[in-house]
Amino acid sequence: MSLPIRPTCILLICVITLLTGGPGCSARYEDNWKSLDARPLPEWYDEAKIGIFVHWGVFSVPGFGRFSEWFWCWWRQNRTEEVEFMKKNYPPGFKYADFAPQFHAEFFNPDNWADIFKASGARYVVFTSKHHEGFTNWPSPVSWNWNSMDVGPHRDLVGELSAAIRKRSLRLGIYHSLFEWFHPLFLSDEASGFKTQEFVARKALPELVDLVKSYKPDLIWSDGDWKAPDTYWNSTQFLAWLYNDSPVKDVVVTNDRWGKGCYCKHGGYYNCADRYTPGKLPTHKWEKCQAVDSLSWGYRRNMKLSQVMTLPSIIKDMVYVVALGGNYLLNIGPMSDGMIAPVFEERLRGLGAWLKINGEAIYASKPWRVQTENSTVTVWYTAKNNTVYAIFFGWPPKQPLQLTTPRTSGTTQVTLMDYPNVPLKWAPTTPTSGLMILMPPMPESPANAWCLKLEGVV
Amino acid sequence: MSLPIRPTCILLICVITLLTGGPGCSARYEDNWKSLDARPLPEWYDEAKIGIFVHWGVFSVPGFGRFSEWFWCWWRQNRTEEVEFMKKNYPPGFKYADFAPQFHAEFFNPDNWADIFKASGARYVVFTSKHHEGFTNWPSPVSWNWNSMDVGPHRDLVGELSAAIRKRSLRLGIYHSLFEWFHPLFLSDEASGFKTQEFVARKALPELVDLVKSYKPDLIWSDGDWKAPDTYWNSTQFLAWLYNDSPVKDVVVTNDRWGKGCYCKHGGYYNCADRYTPGKLPTHKWEKCQAVDSLSWGYRRNMKLSQVMTLPSIIKDMVYVVALGGNYLLNIGPMSDGMIAPVFEERLRGLGAWLKINGEAIYASKPWRVQTENSTVTVWYTAKNNTVYAIFFGWPPKQPLQLTTPRTSGTTQVTLMDYPNVPLKWAPTTPTSGLMILMPPMPESPANAWCLKLEGVV
Amino acid sequence: MSLPIRPTCILLICVITLLTGGPGCSARYEDNWKSLDARPLPEWYDEAKIGIFVHWGVFSVPGFGRFSEWFWCWWRQNRTEEVEFMKKNYPPGFKYADFAPQFHAEFFNPDNWADIFKASGARYVVFTSKHHEGFTNWPSPVSWNWNSMDVGPHRDLVGELSAAIRKRSLRLGIYHSLFEWFHPLFLSDEASGFKTQEFVARKALPELVDLVKSYKPDLIWSDGDWKAPDTYWNSTQFLAWLYNDSPVKDVVVTNDRWGKGCYCKHGGYYNCADRYTPGKLPTHKWEKCQAVDSLSWGYRRNMKLSQVMTLPSIIKDMVYVVALGGNYLLNIGPMSDGMIAPVFEERLRGLGAWLKINGEAIYASKPWRVQTENSTVTVWYTAKNNTVYAIFFGWPPKQPLQLTTPRTSGTTQVTLMDYPNVPLKWAPTTPTSGLMILMPPMPESPANAWCLKLEGVV
Amino acid sequence: MSLPIRPTCILLICVITLLTGGPGCSARYEDNWKSLDARPLPEWYDEAKIGIFVHWGVFSVPGFGRFSEWFWCWWRQNRTEEVEFMKKNYPPGFKYADFAPQFHAEFFNPDNWADIFKASGARYVVFTSKHHEGFTNWPSPVSWNWNSMDVGPHRDLVGELSAAIRKRSLRLGIYHSLFEWFHPLFLSDEASGFKTQEFVARKALPELVDLVKSYKPDLIWSDGDWKAPDTYWNSTQFLAWLYNDSPVKDVVVTNDRWGKGCYCKHGGYYNCADRYTPGKLPTHKWEKCQAVDSLSWGYRRNMKLSQVMTLPSIIKDMVYVVALGGNYLLNIGPMSDGMIAPVFEERLRGLGAWLKINGEAIYASKPWRVQTENSTVTVWYTAKNNTVYAIFFGWPPKQPLQLTTPRTSGTTQVTLMDYPNVPLKWAPTTPTSGLMILMPPMPESPANAWCLKLEGVV
Repeated sequence: MSLPIRPTCILLICVITLLTGGPGCSARYEDNWKSLDARPLPEWYDEAKIGIFVHWGVFSVPGFGRFSEWFWCWWRQNRTEEVEFMKKNYPPGFKYADFAPQFHAEFFNPDNWADIFKASGARYVVFTSKHHEGFTNWPSPVSWNWNSMDVGPHRDLVGELSAAIRKRSLRLGIYHSLFEWFHPLFLSDEASGFKTQEFVARKALPELVDLVKSYKPDLIWSDGDWKAPDTYWNSTQFLAWLYNDSPVKDVVVTNDRWGKGCYCKHGGYYNCADRYTPGKLPTHKWEKCQAVDSLSWGYRRNMKLSQVMTLPSIIKDMVYVVALGGNYLLNIGPMSDGMIAPVFEERLRGLGAWLKINGEAIYASKPWRVQTENSTVTVWYTAKNNTVYAIFFGWPPKQPLQLTTPRTSGTTQVTLMDYPNVPLKWAPTTPTSGLMILMPPMPESPANAWCLKLEGVV
Repeated sequence: MSLPIRPTCILLICVITLLTGGPGCSARYEDNWKSLDARPLPEWYDEAKIGIFVHWGVFSVPGFGRFSEWFWCWWRQNRTEEVEFMKKNYPPGFKYADFAPQFHAEFFNPDNWADIFKASGARYVVFTSKHHEGFTNWPSPVSWNWNSMDVGPHRDLVGELSAAIRKRSLRLGIYHSLFEWFHPLFLSDEASGFKTQEFVARKALPELVDLVKSYKPDLIWSDGDWKAPDTYWNSTQFLAWLYNDSPVKDVVVTNDRWGKGCYCKHGGYYNCADRYTPGKLPTHKWEKCQAVDSLSWGYRRNMKLSQVMTLPSIIKDMVYVVALGGNYLLNIGPMSDGMIAPVFEERLRGLGAWLKINGEAIYASKPWRVQTENSTVTVWYTAKNNTVYAIFFGWPPKQPLQLTTPRTSGTTQVTLMDYPNVPLKWAPTTPTSGLMILMPPMPESPANAWCLKLEGVV
Repeated sequence: MSLPIRPTCILLICVITLLTGGPGCSARYEDNWKSLDARPLPEWYDEAKIGIFVHWGVFSVPGFGRFSEWFWCWWRQNRTEEVEFMKKNYPPGFKYADFAPQFHAEFFNPDNWADIFKASGARYVVFTSKHHEGFTNWPSPVSWNWNSMDVGPHRDLVGELSAAIRKRSLRLGIYHSLFEWFHPLFLSDEASGFKTQEFVARKALPELVDLVKSYKPDLIWSDGDWKAPDTYWNSTQFLAWLYNDSPVKDVVVTNDRWGKGCYCKHGGYYNCADRYTPGKLPTHKWEKCQAVDSLSWGYRRNMKLSQVMTLPSIIKDMVYVVALGGNYLLNIGPMSDGMIAPVFEERLRGLGAWLKINGEAIYASKPWRVQTENSTVTVWYTAKNNTVYAIFFGWPPKQPLQLTTPRTSGTTQVTLMDYPNVPLKWAPTTPTSGLMILMPPMPESPANAWCLKLEGVV
Repeated sequence: MSLPIRPTCILLICVITLLTGGPGCSARYEDNWKSLDARPLPEWYDEAKIGIFVHWGVFSVPGFGRFSEWFWCWWRQNRTEEVEFMKKNYPPGFKYADFAPQFHAEFFNPDNWADIFKASGARYVVFTSKHHEGFTNWPSPVSWNWNSMDVGPHRDLVGELSAAIRKRSLRLGIYHSLFEWFHPLFLSDEASGFKTQEFVARKALPELVDLVKSYKPDLIWSDGDWKAPDTYWNSTQFLAWLYNDSPVKDVVVTNDRWGKGCYCKHGGYYNCADRYTPGKLPTHKWEKCQAVDSLSWGYRRNMKLSQVMTLPSIIKDMVYVVALGGNYLLNIGPMSDGMIAPVFEERLRGLGAWLKINGEAIYASKPWRVQTENSTVTVWYTAKNNTVYAIFFGWPPKQPLQLTTPRTSGTTQVTLMDYPNVPLKWAPTTPTSGLMILMPPMPESPANAWCLKLEGVV
């Protein structure tokens, strides 16, 4: 599978952006939000719909507690859970950096990971190149002896995973935290009220640029921006370079975390807050990220089954997001030895199995004029051209299934995605709207979710 | 729930064993197989049907490779996989005993374990008190500094787990390996052609007796017997003491691994070989043990999902075993940090959920006059008094469901266990045998298995 | 150099022991003290005079605190020093056995050790085969996984050192602790008031016999006896075997720690209490052991220079012991990595340098009729045939040097050992006793000790 | 003791430097060598004569091989010794940065260290704030997670030691390596032919300035300069700031390692090459640094006694240096646990003991008109005002001792420093020059070195 942006399409974008006050295609983006926000979102992203988020770092070594990727911070803030854990299991002087040599990654096989991600039906993968702890998962020249090549795995994790992902025609997203909790340069900038920019000049920007040049990501998932304004981070300058001159200028997608007050307002697509759940159809492309471990993005060794999302709840969440025009970024945290917990693998493969049958209703779909209705069962709609998809959870308890919103026509045809070549009997409910469908016997579905395809309806 | 052996029942046993040449109840077992084999199997065991097997030890630290509990042995025998693993990850001089201090068990919570085991529907738990590596999971006085109290966890794992299990009215089984691969005393006995019995006198028997006296197990799962005859192990003497004078003499159950040539022939119930699968109904009570990780009893950190049994395959295997009169002992290997992998927990809870609906067909059931038939679908039978249970996998593709073996009567009633109070329509197939059943809509079943209850059939 | 017992000498011993109620040489020793105590001490021992004591074991890993070889015991008895050290440097669950894998011994080169011991002028080396911790420095078959072959060094330390020692014609002594603080069998014997002897039967005696058979020691330095009577330890039986039937029966020397109340009373030579210092000439051969680190037998990483004996104080102590008929066993504790601290090496080589000049006054010497006197300076005497040696510390502040005890004759000749061929001028003090010596210029002596050789005096 | 520069003295310096083309005292140094080299050396340094050099860092953890402080570099350059050591003792993936968490420094007590340094008679201490490995022994804000506060000791080693040193009125010297073997910024500057200065701007200079401001050193011992010219390092700019505006501008002393071609030519005093040994009296103040372990500056766990300098050889070396106008900087490498090996302590205390008697001939002395002569014995001269000191090694074998160079007078008086109030008999050898001295009995001297004080000679 390849995911090129078709030339005709780019031309169209140029024209449109010209007309709407953007730079067109011969023009260049300026380093202000007005210009940058006018850039059209590269098409691949909205079509992809589903991505896998991967949180891996030194935090995977203790692998402990709620939001384990924040372990260092909780510990320093004296959260009881982490303090007790350290007291019980480590000698008194032990510090966070002492964990790094234990990040062995001995079983890390990027091809195995990429196979699982591919099997999940996702079209892109977002990997933590560096979390708030500052440890870089690639050999950053400005993070000496605090990166995955010098300490611990002794490998270029970003590089190895990138190669495996591209081999399978998945898009590469790079997560990057702007701030680092305890970096001395950041702390001194902060102490100055962000009047100095030493950290940005010497660490954050050099690393962002290095990442772009070295790994040519299709997506930059920015984070850790909230403590300082975008003017401190030089975000608009960076984005102008990214969109005008970087090797990924035509294809790259970014999110909206570029400084205090930016999110849900500036940048590429919107993440807004973590696990943002809009009540109604947003007007701007958005993405929801959600972790399979409901309590943590990083791996928790002490995770219990009851805290792991079930497959039905993942499918339900994903369908809701897509029906409302969003992308769904599903997170797993690998273990420090490089394994993906089988329970995570099972969820990802379960998602892939459901998408194998029902993916037509998801990939490259658009929100329909109505997103949901609730007659016989709650139904979520997506649409593509003249086809409408109605997705529901739990098998309808009685016959026939009623849908009140679609308006049928003479060419209307109804099928269940599980039985693609078996048209179902149906009848209009009222002359103007709605139909009743005679459902077939229930097909097995570990996801407990099915999809009706309605052709020729409006 | 309590599981006492009722006094009247014991009296009955005494009478029966007297009549069949056994010692009765005033008499004592002699230390020969004729006398010992005549002992009736305590009733609780056959009624329990389902147990959980737990392999935990120093082998859980490397947690690597096929049959990881044999890691030490494979390594010493130069199996490539293990040799390469050690070369890649450890300094040259590293030896197996050096792993022991890394057996931290920091998250080991016996109540959490026991909750999961209880939720699986199992009625007994068999725990490795000591595997072939010789490391004892309790503070054995003859295994100094090679036990879980002196090194690694620094806890009495057998003791803690026993208490948690009993609190939930589960039966306690203790796995015990007679031989130890590399124990110097065993090796010198072996070199003598088993003419000396130093190892038995100083290690194996003292530990067996200590286990019985300290933890009062309901079941002893003997293993590691095959290199030497039962006369070397003093097995009959031990069993005579166990049956006559030990604190568990009335309740204890044992298996059949008590010396070269013993299995499938002497002892209590039969395990025969690992994963023994009889073709037809055996005449002696038996048990099949099977690991959820199809490649290992001990935990493998590098286990992949494809190697993990699915819930449907577990249920199918279990039903097959019970239909043929066996018990089913399902194994999981906890991690060295004391966690049970969520994928294992999910399997166990899935089993429990199925048994909650269909357990009546399993617990305390007996094999029926026919164990299986194959008309509309393959069906396995169990029976209890005048009720017959027909269990099948995959929903029947067409109506009605035919069963050819049961003979119906005027009082015959058919229900699906999922809908206990909903009698199904049925009709006899021929005047003498068989019936046709009109099936209800398919109930959701993650196990993909259902059970018909046929009352009043023969 | 070889140290055989000359046949004529053995014959003489046989005759003498017959006459004094012993077994003679055709007879056998009986397992009672009367018979055993009558055994003549093999001659080599009294002639050797100087030995090196070596304490090495798992205790060398923490290497901490006063009498570091007792670390485990102090810790368990809650001595503040050790408890604080563990709290500060190790995680809470850490136990003593967890130290063992860190006993790396990576620099242990037995030939280097033996070169140093040889250079010290010592004639025998006593090595801890097993201290009270129970960890055996050889692959004992009854100490599985708690010995230097299975854990830590993964080498036969006793074996390797023995070979290197013998290659240099030094005698091999083996230190062996009878009791083990925390061995479960010992503890249960102790709880029985030493009525049971499980520990002796299964651990202590098998190991003693194994040591004798495997390494053929010239000396057994028994210790750890004081909690139980010799009847518990079966000491007389062991010694009878050792003297009658063992491969070292003719040459082996033992000490006196064979049970409560034995020391200074039974066995071979007497150690009496640690650092026993008799006021006057004992009637039985004895030995003083003394550590270069005045606060510990095992290595202390936190040892300070002020706690290390100076060379002059070692020489003084040794001369005092030899003058009173004792042997001097000087102890050093190697580090856990196998190195001997240079400060210890310097002391041993300093001792050797002094003995190279003055050894004639020490080796094979006998106590003289008077052991010490104090005229110009304090002088200690030793004797050999018709020669008397006068040793003093600190150069005499004035001329001439007076000695009051020796009685001169016509053939009397006086030399300083540093200038062997330079007779000194002397004159009798009184007609019957004493002489005045005109001393030469002071020769350099890092030991600050010199020796006058007086030939032809009585 | 306090070591102020007396105001009158400073005034004198100002006048002199003005007259000799320097900046005087109201003027400022310019950032060129002509101006900087004209700065007079603060007086305290020449008077101090003796310093202790301390090499401590991550290299102290492996603590292995010749010049152990270069371990990382040798290893990367495939020196057999280090490669074999790593192969034998560590797992394959292990890298240098993985050593850092094992730099425990648990016994590091700066007061104990400073007591020993004080007892050695040294007047200043030079401590490695950062060696070529780049690990900073203080919490440098531009060496995050590669410094002693974030990893390993978790302490400010420079800060703690500084405080302890000053408490004893010793001068503080800070060793600082300009280059770092493997710092990515340095490597990229080097690849540019040192046209870029990223490393200098972001690492080297910020750290130098931070050290000066934080710890106010009396001496900066620069090193690691040789790969690039001083223009790359911005050395003259730094020194101009140091001499004009830093908090230590009046007191600070520097050496001569400020860029390729600088040594023995520019800067403060001259170190020239390591262990520089001038044949005759140099015209510029110089210093010789010499390690007690003749094979390494950093600690070597596998050091042998034969490789450790003896006290006599240290004293001889020091006397030679002082006689030729140099300072003597004697090095010891502490262990990674924070202990100073007793053999080093003994050398330092031995030096101190000798200086207690003979220090008058050393501290604040000047070279005499003749540095050495060889009549009865080889003699080295120092001088102070009208007094000349003649130092010799080994006691003269015959009387009288002849000295040919001094010219006696009527007031000439000769004493041995060991007997300060005991004038010796002497006579002129010829009318114009030389004298013969009747020596007293030899005083004990572990250093085997003595000093004659000749008053009233020229």
